[in-house]
Amino acid sequence: MVYITRKEHFNSAHRLFRPEYSDEENLRVFGKCSNPLWHGHNYLLMVTVKGEPSRETGFVMDLKKLSQIIADKVLEKLDHRNINLEVDFMKGKLASTENLAIGIWNELEPGIRCEGAVLHSVKLEETENNIVEYFGII
Amino acid sequence: MVYITRKEHFNSAHRLFRPEYSDEENLRVFGKCSNPLWHGHNYLLMVTVKGEPSRETGFVMDLKKLSQIIADKVLEKLDHRNINLEVDFMKGKLASTENLAIGIWNELEPGIRCEGAVLHSVKLEETENNIVEYFGII
Amino acid sequence: MVYITRKEHFNSAHRLFRPEYSDEENLRVFGKCSNPLWHGHNYLLMVTVKGEPSRETGFVMDLKKLSQIIADKVLEKLDHRNINLEVDFMKGKLASTENLAIGIWNELEPGIRCEGAVLHSVKLEETENNIVEYFGII
Amino acid sequence: MVYITRKEHFNSAHRLFRPEYSDEENLRVFGKCSNPLWHGHNYLLMVTVKGEPSRETGFVMDLKKLSQIIADKVLEKLDHRNINLEVDFMKGKLASTENLAIGIWNELEPGIRCEGAVLHSVKLEETENNIVEYFGII
Amino acid sequence: MVYITRKEHFNSAHRLFRPEYSDEENLRVFGKCSNPLWHGHNYLLMVTVKGEPSRETGFVMDLKKLSQIIADKVLEKLDHRNINLEVDFMKGKLASTENLAIGIWNELEPGIRCEGAVLHSVKLEETENNIVEYFGII
Amino acid sequence: MVYITRKEHFNSAHRLFRPEYSDEENLRVFGKCSNPLWHGHNYLLMVTVKGEPSRETGFVMDLKKLSQIIADKVLEKLDHRNINLEVDFMKGKLASTENLAIGIWNELEPGIRCEGAVLHSVKLEETENNIVEYFGII
Repeated sequence: MVYITRKEHFNSAHRLFRPEYSDEENLRVFGKCSNPLWHGHNYLLMVTVKGEPSRETGFVMDLKKLSQIIADKVLEKLDHRNINLEVDFMKGKLASTENLAIGIWNELEPGIRCEGAVLHSVKLEETENNIVEYFGII
Repeated sequence: MVYITRKEHFNSAHRLFRPEYSDEENLRVFGKCSNPLWHGHNYLLMVTVKGEPSRETGFVMDLKKLSQIIADKVLEKLDHRNINLEVDFMKGKLASTENLAIGIWNELEPGIRCEGAVLHSVKLEETENNIVEYFGII
Repeated sequence: MVYITRKEHFNSAHRLFRPEYSDEENLRVFGKCSNPLWHGHNYLLMVTVKGEPSRETGFVMDLKKLSQIIADKVLEKLDHRNINLEVDFMKGKLASTENLAIGIWNELEPGIRCEGAVLHSVKLEETENNIVEYFGII
Repeated sequence: MVYITRKEHFNSAHRLFRPEYSDEENLRVFGKCSNPLWHGHNYLLMVTVKGEPSRETGFVMDLKKLSQIIADKVLEKLDHRNINLEVDFMKGKLASTENLAIGIWNELEPGIRCEGAVLHSVKLEETENNIVEYFGII
Repeated sequence: MVYITRKEHFNSAHRLFRPEYSDEENLRVFGKCSNPLWHGHNYLLMVTVKGEPSRETGFVMDLKKLSQIIADKVLEKLDHRNINLEVDFMKGKLASTENLAIGIWNELEPGIRCEGAVLHSVKLEETENNIVEYFGII
Repeated sequence: MVYITRKEHFNSAHRLFRPEYSDEENLRVFGKCSNPLWHGHNYLLMVTVKGEPSRETGFVMDLKKLSQIIADKVLEKLDHRNINLEVDFMKGKLASTENLAIGIWNELEPGIRCEGAVLHSVKLEETENNIVEYFGII
């Protein structure tokens, strides 16, 4: 079993808040991340897939294919977008890095399975100091 | 003459657009950076000051003071804010990295001069691949 | 289960040596790290906590709280300090990165448990080439 | 149980191809990585070893010894070399990052075991976006 | 005057040698970089352009255009190539980082001038420890 | 004219203080950097040399020679040392990053001149956020 990881980037706007809270309550719970006029990040995404290297190619999975799946299913939806307002798989959810990593896992898993590989983890850095990793439901 | 640099970070939302353009024109000129619902970045800011080291302290300028000026004049206004809508010194300007670097220079220069030091450059990374540096009007 | 990581930094002096050894023996075993007049590092600390994201906040644990616990229990004691002489939880121990990571785990674990989260790992980089990770007693 | 990691670097040339394929078939399967006149990378290697810290030294394993084993068994053979043509343990294998990580594991494991430590993983970055990790046969 | 920088990457094989030298002489002068079967690097390229931000766009130069010029004139020729054997503008030259930076300058300068901007510098990192910068003939 | 830069690292202990001050005064002026029992850093050193590439080698200066001069004149004296107590060229000076960069310049300049090259700058990072650059007396 070998693990391969592809790093990608996207730049998005978001806001942490609950619609039923007042701005003051949101500020108390979520701090400046609740700013009603949005802020944003350069997200760094690391997708890890596991499997045995093919005898034919030496690859666990062709990284160009993995990169294409990430582009189609994740970057196309998130890059230069507003996570709260424009991303279908985040509708009705808090736009925390945790929920975003789970959402990205769910977007990626079927396409990676179709290619005969196994998604191992989705790691998401909101800033270089704040990092989330999700391994699916175990 | 010695040059000292302080790195700081801020996370903001912005949009590149001209209000007199249609969304289509903005998209043609500014690409996905013109998304009307905003996107954002982890900006990396490097402020360089020059001078002779003090005999008393060995410092060109106390980096804690420089860091405090940057916090008061720049981070307070930009961090977790919408650059187009909430930043006084960017009102009426295109929110390009170039204009932002010039704006930050103008915010910082008087306070640094007050401390007896000379502002040399403001360097601003929007992403790790897109970097702007401004040295003032020479 | 989601894993969140907070990165922090501290700058400390230390020395690798056994008091019962002569300087020559310490030099032979620990190399230049045994220099009797100390040396130091910019330590990079990564604390990973695991749990399920809260329905209320979308957070496994509020990173501001995690950061505060790290500041109170670890940075306050280690930053700009001499690890051999000034850090209570390292008294009588060799100041290796391994022992320091274990010590930091023991400092952090009760406070993180109090917040309802589970400490998963403490990763400590002494230099960018020398890295230690500790997962507790398993 | 504590995990320690040593980072090292090497710069090599390689090519992805199958000798029984035509250049066109290799290009279709391996893309520009199949260029017959080679290309190359700055490989980043992270070797992780696990064990209990020694009471005598505080070390899981002396990183100078680990670094020496990596130099003798891996860097000496790979650094400034052609992976396809000059590396004994890669003869007859596709020079993919996956196969290279497995080959490096096999080179390192006996020497690390001799030192009383346990090799945990070999992580290899071909570029900062393409990363492979191998944990041995489990 | 504002300076903007675009970072790009390419992965190439090369060899440092003089054809009139024996392998032994090349080894003495160029060390392991003279390996006759090649080695390679992940080159990091930083291209800096200067000018006044446009009133229309806020840009010194559209980074997408700059990126396109770098792709067409430099990456297309260098990425996944053998610098000694396949790159027209390096024919007959020693494949040192210095000569490569000068060659890249000469490839880029006319296209950037056509866009009304001024090329300021070409910075090229062969490894993270070896860096060359060229400012043209002054 | 081409500029080449070599990056090196050293790990040292230091303290910012004036001996004629009390500990309280030192704390007021230098903050926690004045801790009497020392602290330390992973210093990152970038030495830039300028000249014309040799027709014989394509090099402004052989980076192995530059690296050797830095090792002999700087790293040998500073690495795993106490800057205040053990470094001859820092005796009697405040151990600020500014003074250290000037001291390193003076150590390196004659040896680089002997090799027919011109020292352009000494850049020293105490932490990734605090950086000093010195260009000599101009």
